[in-house]
Amino acid sequence: MYKTSRERLDEKIKTFSKFGDTGHGGITRFSLSPAALAARNEFCSRCRTLGMTIKTDDMGNIYATLPGEEGLSAIMSGSHCDSVKQGGNYDGILGVLTALEAAETIVTDKIPHRHPITVVIWTNEEGARFEPAMMSSGVITGKFDKAKMLASVAKDTGDITFGEALDASGYKGAESDRMDPQKTLGLVELHIEQGPVLESEEVDIGVVEGVCGMINYEFTFKGQADHAGTTPMKFRKDALYAAVKTIQYLHDELDKLDSKLVYTTGKIYCHPNIHTIIPDETRFTLDARHQDPAVLEQVLGIIKAIPAEVEKCEASNAVAWTRKTVAYHAPYIDLVEANAKALGYSAKRLYSGPGHDAQFVADLVPTTMIFVPSVHGHSHCEKEYTPSEACSKGCDVLLGTILDIDKL
Amino acid sequence: MYKTSRERLDEKIKTFSKFGDTGHGGITRFSLSPAALAARNEFCSRCRTLGMTIKTDDMGNIYATLPGEEGLSAIMSGSHCDSVKQGGNYDGILGVLTALEAAETIVTDKIPHRHPITVVIWTNEEGARFEPAMMSSGVITGKFDKAKMLASVAKDTGDITFGEALDASGYKGAESDRMDPQKTLGLVELHIEQGPVLESEEVDIGVVEGVCGMINYEFTFKGQADHAGTTPMKFRKDALYAAVKTIQYLHDELDKLDSKLVYTTGKIYCHPNIHTIIPDETRFTLDARHQDPAVLEQVLGIIKAIPAEVEKCEASNAVAWTRKTVAYHAPYIDLVEANAKALGYSAKRLYSGPGHDAQFVADLVPTTMIFVPSVHGHSHCEKEYTPSEACSKGCDVLLGTILDIDKL
Repeated sequence: MYKTSRERLDEKIKTFSKFGDTGHGGITRFSLSPAALAARNEFCSRCRTLGMTIKTDDMGNIYATLPGEEGLSAIMSGSHCDSVKQGGNYDGILGVLTALEAAETIVTDKIPHRHPITVVIWTNEEGARFEPAMMSSGVITGKFDKAKMLASVAKDTGDITFGEALDASGYKGAESDRMDPQKTLGLVELHIEQGPVLESEEVDIGVVEGVCGMINYEFTFKGQADHAGTTPMKFRKDALYAAVKTIQYLHDELDKLDSKLVYTTGKIYCHPNIHTIIPDETRFTLDARHQDPAVLEQVLGIIKAIPAEVEKCEASNAVAWTRKTVAYHAPYIDLVEANAKALGYSAKRLYSGPGHDAQFVADLVPTTMIFVPSVHGHSHCEKEYTPSEACSKGCDVLLGTILDIDKL
Repeated sequence: MYKTSRERLDEKIKTFSKFGDTGHGGITRFSLSPAALAARNEFCSRCRTLGMTIKTDDMGNIYATLPGEEGLSAIMSGSHCDSVKQGGNYDGILGVLTALEAAETIVTDKIPHRHPITVVIWTNEEGARFEPAMMSSGVITGKFDKAKMLASVAKDTGDITFGEALDASGYKGAESDRMDPQKTLGLVELHIEQGPVLESEEVDIGVVEGVCGMINYEFTFKGQADHAGTTPMKFRKDALYAAVKTIQYLHDELDKLDSKLVYTTGKIYCHPNIHTIIPDETRFTLDARHQDPAVLEQVLGIIKAIPAEVEKCEASNAVAWTRKTVAYHAPYIDLVEANAKALGYSAKRLYSGPGHDAQFVADLVPTTMIFVPSVHGHSHCEKEYTPSEACSKGCDVLLGTILDIDKL
């Protein structure tokens, strides 16, 4: 079996970690920022050296293609190079660099292949500077309205739109150069797991079967603001206590459902949030994810059972958004698993909790993903880390999967 | 029995409600602001018309005195004229205006009295602009360091200190003109209840026995920030859930204590407070008040029983501050109750939950307070309201009590 070069991949990871280096082990590389443009320039330079041709589309997505036999559709792989604020050196960029290393191995080792191989960088996956996340894969797959996306204003400074940043970037191309499903055989995206499962079970490769469905709700409780020192307990309408009761109820009930369900009450707002005043309004969020829509229906049932009045406070809730479960392409999933086994790497089938560009692409062409372990499950932080050996194993599985797809 | 004039008191309340009028039924009258200075000017003008002499001390406290027999110590009454942001027309100012109306009645009705009668305005009771609350009664009774108080910077704008505002106010007098305990017989402060008890029990007069002791704690929980979509429930260290568990524990245990205990978890902080990230730090406050120190000891025992680890999160707590129970002067308390009864007004003995200037003065001279009902218990808001008749009844009890003290 062909193997990629761990040394070359290490060098790539090290080099790209300089673009947006925070000086504390991580990066801040907002989409289309100078740091992100420097990473794009370095990527394009390396691709040209390998003899790849580069196109960009009207959302700034980059497609670097190694030629194959004329008339055959391309096999795509890649991810994104933007990060959250004080993010790590693996989320997104590892999918770009392993795809690049796979292409470099094909070139260097003169590996025969029939199909063109395209390494892709999707613009603005994180949505950290311009909302929403997965913006540009979303536009070209028909999920988002392009005009609205171009008008998205920088969250941090408010002084520039995504469209203006794109115009200034030098990476804006033609709509006709978008990924064409008719000319694309399929896509494989490698990504870090961003969770602790693979590491804790000592598994090398995550064979990603799809992306979990998700529901996001916001709960609101309205009580009465009164003085902490003068209001007997029996007179109180304490909105924070009503929220506490409800969070406890959700934990109690949701814990009875399938153990693969993950749910989070991550955000809470309390008004007036003064230690001597009984809160008159409290809101909190619930994020729940599972691969089986039936389990998410059970979650909805638990939410709907919350009474209209909790601890004498008016209780209400509203859906913020939902995402349906995305199933990846079964033959590709099998190929990822078979390659891991053939290479002697342990593998585990799982669903992705977070969203990825690949889930949008999956609606148009056969798609799958490969996960590599995240140490302690850390991600979206400077401590985010995947050991060199683990990255290299993922890269080998990616190359093998691409070459197997090439034979389909 | 002598009675004060309800019409005159109504006119006073109406006139003073213009100083800092928000246009929505309330006032914003920060200490030493133009609105507060206008109220002080109007107060001094009315006092001079009544033949009172006015002194101010080095903290801007105003003492307006109706003369009595030479050599006798003064009977004081009054409160403060500053408010919180968007506060009401009764908190503090009603204690000033009822004392002024009592003095006006004494003058108008030529009521014989032996002792000088001093109406006082304490500077900066609320601490809404310059911290801390009860600043100037605190300085002259030795609770606060004067130099530190003068250096207190405006919380809203940060551009001026209390000392600078005092210098510019025209109300800064001499330290030698502070309330002299040797020349002060005692103090009676009328105030709104700021709670719902008197109204709900249809009681006219609150006979205040003292001010509840108080403990304030802050609880901190440290967990691990991880991705909401990738971290199985068993791996989580959710700091918000640890806080929720502890708030529920505190409610469960504190509810078993004496029913007069009031406690509030009013303020919560959650980090990073993003709906897709498990919180890694949550803090909340507990404010607990009771007149009996033994009950507050029980509260402390319940706090101390919280384990060092809650839901796999590191749990800690620290006292923010405490206040000992203050007992008012028993003979004065009896006089307030007797006057209410003699006037045919219903009365109830109770402890004050909130702090008042009178509790500092109580350390130096015999002191008590009179409460009048707050509709729906509202205070520190524009809805704060006490009906004219209820204010008038309180004013009558205040006059009667002053005249009875005069006979002691």
